[in-house]
This record gives sequence, C-alpha cells and structure tokens, in this order.
Amino acid sequence: MCRFLAYTGEPVFLDTLLIEPASSLVSQSLAAREAKTLVNGDGCGVGWYGARPEPGIYRGTLPAWSDANLASLCHQVAAPMFLAHVRSATSGEVSMANCHPFAYGRHLFMHNGQIGGYERIRRSVEAMVPDDLYASRRGNGDSEAIFLAALGHGLDVDPLAALTRTLAACTRMMHANAITSALRFTAILADGDTLHAIRWASDDHPPTLYWRHLDTGIAIASEPFGDSADCWEAVPPGSAMTATRGAVAFSDFAVA
Amino acid sequence: MCRFLAYTGEPVFLDTLLIEPASSLVSQSLAAREAKTLVNGDGCGVGWYGARPEPGIYRGTLPAWSDANLASLCHQVAAPMFLAHVRSATSGEVSMANCHPFAYGRHLFMHNGQIGGYERIRRSVEAMVPDDLYASRRGNGDSEAIFLAALGHGLDVDPLAALTRTLAACTRMMHANAITSALRFTAILADGDTLHAIRWASDDHPPTLYWRHLDTGIAIASEPFGDSADCWEAVPPGSAMTATRGAVAFSDFAVA
Amino acid sequence: MCRFLAYTGEPVFLDTLLIEPASSLVSQSLAAREAKTLVNGDGCGVGWYGARPEPGIYRGTLPAWSDANLASLCHQVAAPMFLAHVRSATSGEVSMANCHPFAYGRHLFMHNGQIGGYERIRRSVEAMVPDDLYASRRGNGDSEAIFLAALGHGLDVDPLAALTRTLAACTRMMHANAITSALRFTAILADGDTLHAIRWASDDHPPTLYWRHLDTGIAIASEPFGDSADCWEAVPPGSAMTATRGAVAFSDFAVA
Amino acid sequence: MCRFLAYTGEPVFLDTLLIEPASSLVSQSLAAREAKTLVNGDGCGVGWYGARPEPGIYRGTLPAWSDANLASLCHQVAAPMFLAHVRSATSGEVSMANCHPFAYGRHLFMHNGQIGGYERIRRSVEAMVPDDLYASRRGNGDSEAIFLAALGHGLDVDPLAALTRTLAACTRMMHANAITSALRFTAILADGDTLHAIRWASDDHPPTLYWRHLDTGIAIASEPFGDSADCWEAVPPGSAMTATRGAVAFSDFAVA
Repeated sequence: MCRFLAYTGEPVFLDTLLIEPASSLVSQSLAAREAKTLVNGDGCGVGWYGARPEPGIYRGTLPAWSDANLASLCHQVAAPMFLAHVRSATSGEVSMANCHPFAYGRHLFMHNGQIGGYERIRRSVEAMVPDDLYASRRGNGDSEAIFLAALGHGLDVDPLAALTRTLAACTRMMHANAITSALRFTAILADGDTLHAIRWASDDHPPTLYWRHLDTGIAIASEPFGDSADCWEAVPPGSAMTATRGAVAFSDFAVA
Repeated sequence: MCRFLAYTGEPVFLDTLLIEPASSLVSQSLAAREAKTLVNGDGCGVGWYGARPEPGIYRGTLPAWSDANLASLCHQVAAPMFLAHVRSATSGEVSMANCHPFAYGRHLFMHNGQIGGYERIRRSVEAMVPDDLYASRRGNGDSEAIFLAALGHGLDVDPLAALTRTLAACTRMMHANAITSALRFTAILADGDTLHAIRWASDDHPPTLYWRHLDTGIAIASEPFGDSADCWEAVPPGSAMTATRGAVAFSDFAVA
Repeated sequence: MCRFLAYTGEPVFLDTLLIEPASSLVSQSLAAREAKTLVNGDGCGVGWYGARPEPGIYRGTLPAWSDANLASLCHQVAAPMFLAHVRSATSGEVSMANCHPFAYGRHLFMHNGQIGGYERIRRSVEAMVPDDLYASRRGNGDSEAIFLAALGHGLDVDPLAALTRTLAACTRMMHANAITSALRFTAILADGDTLHAIRWASDDHPPTLYWRHLDTGIAIASEPFGDSADCWEAVPPGSAMTATRGAVAFSDFAVA
Repeated sequence: MCRFLAYTGEPVFLDTLLIEPASSLVSQSLAAREAKTLVNGDGCGVGWYGARPEPGIYRGTLPAWSDANLASLCHQVAAPMFLAHVRSATSGEVSMANCHPFAYGRHLFMHNGQIGGYERIRRSVEAMVPDDLYASRRGNGDSEAIFLAALGHGLDVDPLAALTRTLAACTRMMHANAITSALRFTAILADGDTLHAIRWASDDHPPTLYWRHLDTGIAIASEPFGDSADCWEAVPPGSAMTATRGAVAFSDFAVA
C-alpha cells in the first residue's frame, strides 16, 4: 500500500504538512501505523498548483526520507492545492515514470490500492486509453492506466462518473478473467479548483482515507498525522468527498 | 542515434573492448565520428552470457562515461558473447526500463534507429506483442516493442524471419497512417550461441554497421573503433550477418 | 569546463531564461560554442531566492537535458534572483553533493574553472575550512572547498576580499607544491540581495563570462545565449561585477 | 544500523546467499529482527573477488529490494569471497560514494556501527588519512574515513593492529572532545585471501555479528538468516574472527 496526502485551502508551504508534523508523510514513509506494507521506499512525488495553468510535478525514485531535493522544494513552495505520494510498488517497476501523482493538462491523480491480477488484464485496461493519450503513457503500472482510461471516459467533464465507468470496466475484465482478488481504489483527483477524494473497493477492504479541517484549509490523507490525530474523520467506504473553495460535499461512490 | 557494440568469440573481459580501445564505446558516448546526434548521454547498458542460461544485464541512466558501476563490471566480467549500448533517446524517456539491451529468456536485443512517427502507431505496434509477453513490457519505447512483437512473430524459431515480419507490419502501419518518415533498423540479436546483426532501413539511410575479426573473435559495432579502424568492414545495407561459433554468414534482409 | 547562468531583477520564471531561449543553458549543456569540453552531462543544479530566507536548491546527476524534474521546476518557479549550473566534472565524482550551486545560509555559490593539481593540495585547501563548517562539507570537489574556505575568510562580511584571500592561499599552496598548471576561477556568489560575478585566472585564460541587460533585469552567463547574442558584453579578466537592486558596478579583482 | 554479509569458501553465486535464503540480506533490508533501525533503504553495495587482482564493486543508492542491477549481478557472478552491505545512514548523505563496501587496492572494507559525535571529530579523523590516500577519498562518512586512516596505520601489513591503532586514536579524540556517546565497530575487512570480522564497541553494545559453516564455506553476517538460523554462532564482543582458506581463528580485539 502507498500513502498520500492532499491539501486545499489558503496557500501553505508544502513542508508544513508534508515534513514538519509528527508522523508526517515523509516520516510515515519510513514506518506507519495502519498500512499493510512496512515501508514506502519505492519513490515519491508531489504535484502542486502554482502560477501556471498546469501543475508542477516532482517525482523521484529515492525514498522520500533521503530526497534532499524534495525537502528543499517542500520548504520553498507554497500552494493552495497540492498532492503528495510515497510509493510501495504493487504494479510497475520503481521508476520516475511510475511515481505518483500523474499529470495530464490541469489534472493531477494519485492512487492507493491495486487492481487484482492486473498483469492478466493490463492489455484490456490499456486498450481503454484513447488514442490521443496513448502516446503520452510513460509508465507501466495500473494507476497511470486507470487515470488515462478515465480521461477517455470523460474525466474532463464529470470526473466521478468517468472513474466509475473506468472501474466498472476493470471489474468486468477481472470477472471475465476469473480474477477473484479485489480491486481497491482510494484516490485523489485534482484540477486546481476542485479536489475529489474517493474510497472504494470491490470487497470490504478499501484502503483507509481520512480528512480534517485545518486552520487554513482541508487535508485528506491515507492515514491521520500530526499531534491531534483524533480530529481526523474517516471518509466512509463507497463514497467520494469533493472539496472546492472551502466547501466539502460527500456523495456515494458505487461501481455497478 | 544510439551506438552499440557486440562481441562473440573466446571469453574476453568486457573492458578490453568497451573501455580500453581508442574511441571505445564509452568514449564514443561522449563524442563520435559518424553519428548524427552529438552525445549519447541518455543511459547505457550491457548484457552478457555467463554461467547461467539467461544473460546478465546491467542498465543505468547515467551517461556511460560517469558510471563507476559499469566500469567495474566491465573490468571484472569476461564473457564469450556480450552486447553493449549507449543511448541517445528518440522514443521513450530516459529510464532504466528504456535502456538497451532488452532481455527475454536467453535472448538479448539492442537497436539503433527509429520508427518514423512512432507515437502515431505505438498502439498498433504494441498490439502485436503477444498476451503472455505483454505483462513483461517495462519500458515505453519503440525498440522494446519491436523486440517483444518479434517474439510473438516467432523469434524463438526463426529470428530473421520474425524480425522481417515485424518490420513489414510496422511499415504497413506507417503507410496506413500516412507517415512519410523512415523506419530505420540496425540491430543486434543474440541468444548465447548465435549473434545476428541486421542493417536495414525503409529509405537509403540505414544506420551504419561495421564488423571485424579480432584475435579472439568477432566484433560488430555501430562505428569502427580502436587503432586499426581501417580493418573494419561495413555490413551492407539490406543485409544480415550471422555469427555462430566462429563462422560468419551473410544473407539479404529485405522487408516486403 | 562547466557552464552557468545567473539572473537578478524582477521575478521571472526560471525557464524563460534557462530553457526557452535559443542556445539556452539546457541546450548549451548538450553542445556549446566556446567551452572547451564538448558536453556538460555530469549533473546540473539551480538555486533560487523565494519566500524563505534561505535559497531553494535543486541538484541532480542526470544531464540537464533529460531531467524532467528540472524542467517542471523551472516552469513553475519565478524568482528575482537565481543561479543555474551544468557540470562537466574536473574534480570530484558525479554526485548530487558535487553539483553546483552550493548553499550555506543565505549564500549560493557556483564556479567554472579548476585548481591546477588539486588532488595534491586538496588537504591544505580543506584545512582552510573552519571547524564549524567542516562538518557540513558534503562533496569532495575543489569548488565546494573554495566556497567553504572563503566562508572562513569572511565571506559573510566582505565577499570579494574573502575570495581574494582564499585564492591567494590556494596560489601559495600550488607554488609550494610546484604545481605549474593554472588556477582558473570564474564564479558567481549571491545572497538574495547582491550578486557578485568574478572572472580571474592565474594565467591569461580565465573562463569566459558575459553579462547583459534584459527587460526585467540582468543576466550573467558563461556564454552568450538567445537570439541577440551580440548584446552581451564580456566581463573583463581580472575583474568583478556586482549587481544589486538594478545597479551594476565593476571592480578589479586581483589575487596577490 | 546497517546490515551486512560476507562469505569465503568455494565459489558460489552471490544470489544463493544474498537473495534466495529466507530473511536474506535483501529481504532483511526491508524488515529485520535485531537491528535497531527499521529499514535499510539508504543504498547497498557488493564487492567480490574474481579474475582480477582488485575486487569488483557495485554500489547503488536505491534500496536493495528494488535494484534490478544488483539482482542480475548477484545471479550471474560467482565468487570465492564477497561482501555485501545494506545501509541505514548514520553519517554521510545517501550517495554512491558513501555506500559500503569501500575498496582500496585489493582491500575491501565494510562497517556497521558509528563513531559517537563524529561531526565534532571528523576533521581529526580525516587528518589521520595519509596524504597519498587523501586524494582518493570520495565520500564524507565515518566508515570510509576509518578505513583510509587504518591504511595509513599499516592495514596492508597487520590489519588488526592497524584497526586497533585507528580506533584507539578515535577514542582519544572523542575523549578530548568530551564525547560521551559510544564508538561501535562491527566490521569486515578482506583482501581476497583472508577475511577479518571484528566486533567491538567502547561500551557494552557492539553491533551483533554471527558466523556459521556452510557446505561450501563460511558466512559471516550482522544477523542470522536462512532456515537453520539456530546454526549461527555469535562472534563474542571484543574479538576478531579471521577466516583464511577454510581455517577459522579467533583472537581478542581490544582498543587500549
């Protein structure tokens, strides 16, 4: 399992959330409380919205705790919306191209979970990626494939519906291939204005997802962190949380 | 354009051919005489046949001239057949997964050239990769795709025919997509016993390919190197050279 | 020889100077007009002054032309003062710790040149580094050693005098060791307010240094770049240029 | 704490000891039983004796568990003596130059432990490195410094005495600087013929060190591994074990 953090609100320096808090994402990358794999040492990445229409991206293959560039970047850059991810590889080798978040245009996407038996349906999943996006595929993991497929399913227009359609198609492929392991999908999708957080699985074990109000905005994370860990609320399984300009809304997220 | 070197014969230390000669592959990676791009600084790799059925592989993203691990490995390892490649990226980002040579089972493959307009036919080329190999695809460049597609076209049984079929299919895809730039293919294929060197292009400009007898065996390279550069002979365009246990044979290589 | 660029003026996005211009630093890293080494593929770095008292730093071992993180960072970050460097190693291996610029507190430093016979006086040069800075030494090259030694010689108070003293000491060490090759020192020193550019050598061949007015400020570079290359003026050998809040001043820079 | 393994005996493929056994060094790098730090993700290295007088070296900054080159190398290379190390950094940044083992001539050295308050005596420790070795210093950690200092104290002639002298000098420096934390030194030194394993600390907590007979030779490791973990014997604190051509001898190792 990977771990991640997303923020939206007034601009804050990235390190105030990613590095300084007790059990922050970077220290979490070394030892965590709830995740099932012990270590997230298979690369890390941050994406942030700044003065440009497209987000900035930094991704590296070093473990987060030893990446001096990541530390300096997070200390210098303040942003009103950002995503950060530390990876524990389940599909796709350790390479920059397989590090989250993934970017396309204004969109950023990161994922915690996995498609059961992915290697057996990889070809079918990649077949959903539209032609004009196929060329931009750089990695070889399941997460990037889901993101690009969802872009082909209308993520630009209706993100949650596009993800639902994509996951439904993946579920059908898994059935068709008699794959019995689960599809687990806890993910963050952002475009600079709106941030969607989804927690869903085909079984009863969607990866954890928490959120809380901060003084300056809203944080969403795979695990609580900071001194006041009790202030975090779980995002319920089978639901999506949407944060836009300070307002938070919840909706069911079901995959037919 | 990339550069490469292959050797077959009595076991020799890799550095005697890759590093020590005047204008060796590693020094070539910094400045070359015939290649069209100035620098081959986009990664490097070697594959060699040792005591195991499968070849050993080392690939790195540093330029060959600054890779201390490559230097030590080439100084320590002696092999009766090996391939080495320095990359100047034309398709696929700089990553270990895109560095040549590529390996599958006993086979090693490396390529110098490019498929014109690859991004427009990438999906069709990758569709030729058989299901059972698709999952093992790690990179995103044209060279690995050709290799895996050729494995699906019978490379195990008749390597040259499989490559011919694969390139013919690529050519048809390029025509169908009105791609006018050329498909250029100078490549080495090895399995530990036999080494095939192919020089072919859809236009009149296949990348250069030379070979020569050494005291201990046969060297094939994208460019002559060493003090006696005049001893090298060009492999003619549209032909394949096959070296197996000291014997060298030439055959036409045409793509219908 | 390495190559570098520094800027001070109104905040500009780093890529407007580092990547977009004709023959920019990144394209220069692949092939340059005046430098003596053909390629600057031994790592790169940028330092910039932002919202924090200390500068931000990004350094990597990939060649500048293939570093996707560098490209994204330069596209996102705007700064009123920044330094950028592409390395062609003369002393010290290729590693992040040996990439320029070097940072200490508010100071950034980058260097183009070399200390002749450095390996023979390395110990003496490093002996000039004050105790409290010695522990922070991370690399093993001559440039970082000069910078840290100059910090011990009062760089905080009078930067040019500190550099003069440091270089004079190096020169004496070279004489004492009968080193006849030259000490060449073209360098940039910055603290967020003021930018010093120095061009000096113990012989007649200090590495080139140019500067020009831009619409938004002042650029200083190891080589002219951009369409209007004729607008650049050479900084004379044996001189220092100081740029602070739009004003430019020149002074002699001599090492007794 | 780092972890390491050394072997001497009949040539074996490195992966038979480093990768294949239950809780091998590579899997240990992810989660270990006795070590105090949870993860050894700060780089790894192997050194082996082959057909050349000097050992081969491979060192990388990726965690051992995600290093494909390391896996291939260990699968291909068989050697009668080798050392392997996974790092959890205590002194010196994560870089190839700081990865163990360190090599000089025929000697290989790797270390598990630390010099208390090293940053305060680094300069004095480095002052012990003889002039002719100082230039070859590439990293900035305590382990390399001890090794080079010991070379200056006669490691070529009497390895254990040289290490004793070096550690005694370090201890005096620590006293002179009122450093109360311990000097802990569990280390392996090899030259292709003989392998020394030392376990010592200035307090009662020298890092663990175990050894056992294998069918083909002798293994020494920071922690037991394999199915028959009960066959391992601890090297007693304050002692050195010397293995040469199948014979094992123990001696006291005391630092005056």
